[in-house]
Amino acid sequence: MMSSAQDKRIEKHEVIVVGAGIAGLTAALYLARQGVDVLVVSRDLGGQLLMAPLIENYPGIDAVKGLDLAMRVERQAKTFGAKMRYGEEVVKISRLADGTFEVTTNRGNIYRAEAVILAFGKTPKRMNIPGEKEYDGRGVSYCTICDGPLYRGRVTAVVGVGEQGLEAVSILKGLCPKVYYITPTKLYGDPEVISLIKNSENIEILEEHEPVEVIGDGRRVTGIKVRDKKTGAVKVLKVEGIFVELGYEARTEFVKELVDLNENNEIVIDKIGQTKTPGLFAAGDVTEIPFKQAVISAGEAAKAALAAFNYLQKRRGKQVTIRGDWKKTGKVKPAKTSMRLGMPGKTRRESHG
Amino acid sequence: MMSSAQDKRIEKHEVIVVGAGIAGLTAALYLARQGVDVLVVSRDLGGQLLMAPLIENYPGIDAVKGLDLAMRVERQAKTFGAKMRYGEEVVKISRLADGTFEVTTNRGNIYRAEAVILAFGKTPKRMNIPGEKEYDGRGVSYCTICDGPLYRGRVTAVVGVGEQGLEAVSILKGLCPKVYYITPTKLYGDPEVISLIKNSENIEILEEHEPVEVIGDGRRVTGIKVRDKKTGAVKVLKVEGIFVELGYEARTEFVKELVDLNENNEIVIDKIGQTKTPGLFAAGDVTEIPFKQAVISAGEAAKAALAAFNYLQKRRGKQVTIRGDWKKTGKVKPAKTSMRLGMPGKTRRESHG
Repeated sequence: MMSSAQDKRIEKHEVIVVGAGIAGLTAALYLARQGVDVLVVSRDLGGQLLMAPLIENYPGIDAVKGLDLAMRVERQAKTFGAKMRYGEEVVKISRLADGTFEVTTNRGNIYRAEAVILAFGKTPKRMNIPGEKEYDGRGVSYCTICDGPLYRGRVTAVVGVGEQGLEAVSILKGLCPKVYYITPTKLYGDPEVISLIKNSENIEILEEHEPVEVIGDGRRVTGIKVRDKKTGAVKVLKVEGIFVELGYEARTEFVKELVDLNENNEIVIDKIGQTKTPGLFAAGDVTEIPFKQAVISAGEAAKAALAAFNYLQKRRGKQVTIRGDWKKTGKVKPAKTSMRLGMPGKTRRESHG
Repeated sequence: MMSSAQDKRIEKHEVIVVGAGIAGLTAALYLARQGVDVLVVSRDLGGQLLMAPLIENYPGIDAVKGLDLAMRVERQAKTFGAKMRYGEEVVKISRLADGTFEVTTNRGNIYRAEAVILAFGKTPKRMNIPGEKEYDGRGVSYCTICDGPLYRGRVTAVVGVGEQGLEAVSILKGLCPKVYYITPTKLYGDPEVISLIKNSENIEILEEHEPVEVIGDGRRVTGIKVRDKKTGAVKVLKVEGIFVELGYEARTEFVKELVDLNENNEIVIDKIGQTKTPGLFAAGDVTEIPFKQAVISAGEAAKAALAAFNYLQKRRGKQVTIRGDWKKTGKVKPAKTSMRLGMPGKTRRESHG
């Protein structure tokens, strides 16, 4: 009885993709198109694409909002049969004795798969102070460009560094009656922007200050306690919103037994997205690839997905045949019907190798 | 006088991209957007994309004709200032004493650049028989899907192997009164297609036959001489079109002093598209990356372009700053104008590293 109840909670798929940014969605699209049963598990749809109001260098699309691009790729992936599970964060991945993987989420759900693709990108750095976790989503935000408009007319604070911090302040400047900019260092970044911010009446800059505690009334943020690093003086600022813009990090500790990490905790991969563990692949911003661009993440994910497909086929003793990236339709059609070569989505391309 | 006349013929750019398939065009887009003076030199626009009637797994675009995708990326690249030179094939690349490159084309034009990106993809394999070169484009074609419709109502031959050969025959079957299929091996490929072709009245199959000579009247192809490999018997088939579908190869001999090649003559690169020669980069189907897909070539080219940009900056002793892949516009706008952060195409993204 016990084991049957347990079995019921374990959902099985051929491949689990962790993350639904451009990398995760592209991996799902490619796997689903190969006929693989693939499930995407992710906290949200879009990942860092959500922070991109307009992408103008994605080859083939003149200009596209980050969220729109994510939604387009998600729809494509679903068309080919990929499944999506949002609102869950993967917290544990284990490789079982039979070589399959067990993936556990923060909701206690357990998934099993023969291969896993890690594509969960980077995560905003936390302040790591009391109250931060408690008020996450209730006044504490890690995406000013996403959530800024919700704080129109309210007093807010940005805890940030460098250009990322300046940019958040610039956004809130036009929305909020007062914005505190709390930055642990001296101001740095574009001199033009710094000068503009310094001359804004509704911005108060607290250089070399660090956040100490998020204050709230149990429901929502009501303030933030900060310390002057030079004098040690502590004070509380009354704010309703706190925007944390301290940079991004690869939070890969939970897979560190399975993959090699570089000095930035990014996952080390080979040229086709394989990690050191057979069946475990990675793509996108979570990897060591240095340039963080949508089309690069998409390309890397396509490679990882096809490598994962090859892995599955080999595991089953099957011959590996990758379907080409086009279907033969259009003006020049093979005569009549019933021919495999003429059927949408059924052709194979020569390997061109 | 002599040297001045020579100088005039040498055109200088910061970067030369060789090839205008999805890889070359994406590299140009990325470099131009970084403000680099980039020239694309290519025989044609589109490369192997021309053979893709409908691509359905390019992330973000539901379905697109290969040529349309090429034209879209070309337009994007031009928008940012990339220059295009079609109808020329690069035949020689030398690295000069000062570390710059000299690029020579089949028209005798010479270009100089500080960096070169090799993105010329793969080339159809030749038959290597008399008459082939003479009648190239005058009855001899290497792309059935591109040129097939031009031979409607005419007797044609396919010289091919495997599924690529079968596919060409399938295309011509519906267009031509008679199609010879000349294949050096036994027929192989999809059994369903083979059976269909065998049962077609207008297809004559010559298994284990090899082409010997392209026959013409000086203007155009009039026939092809073939030899039966088993009996040695030679005969001439009267045809007006010859479609060569023997696979593809990386024709990289002319750069073999500058790059490492693998066993398929593909260019060896590192994870960001660098070859063994500083300043020389490669991306797309011409490289060793195993999966030949449009979005993978695009991603690889974006990496190579940014690596080339870094190389240029370092060469000039400049700090390296890669522009992010989005511009800050859209719903959430920084207040007022005049701010760099709000100006299209001028923002930088945090490195997220």
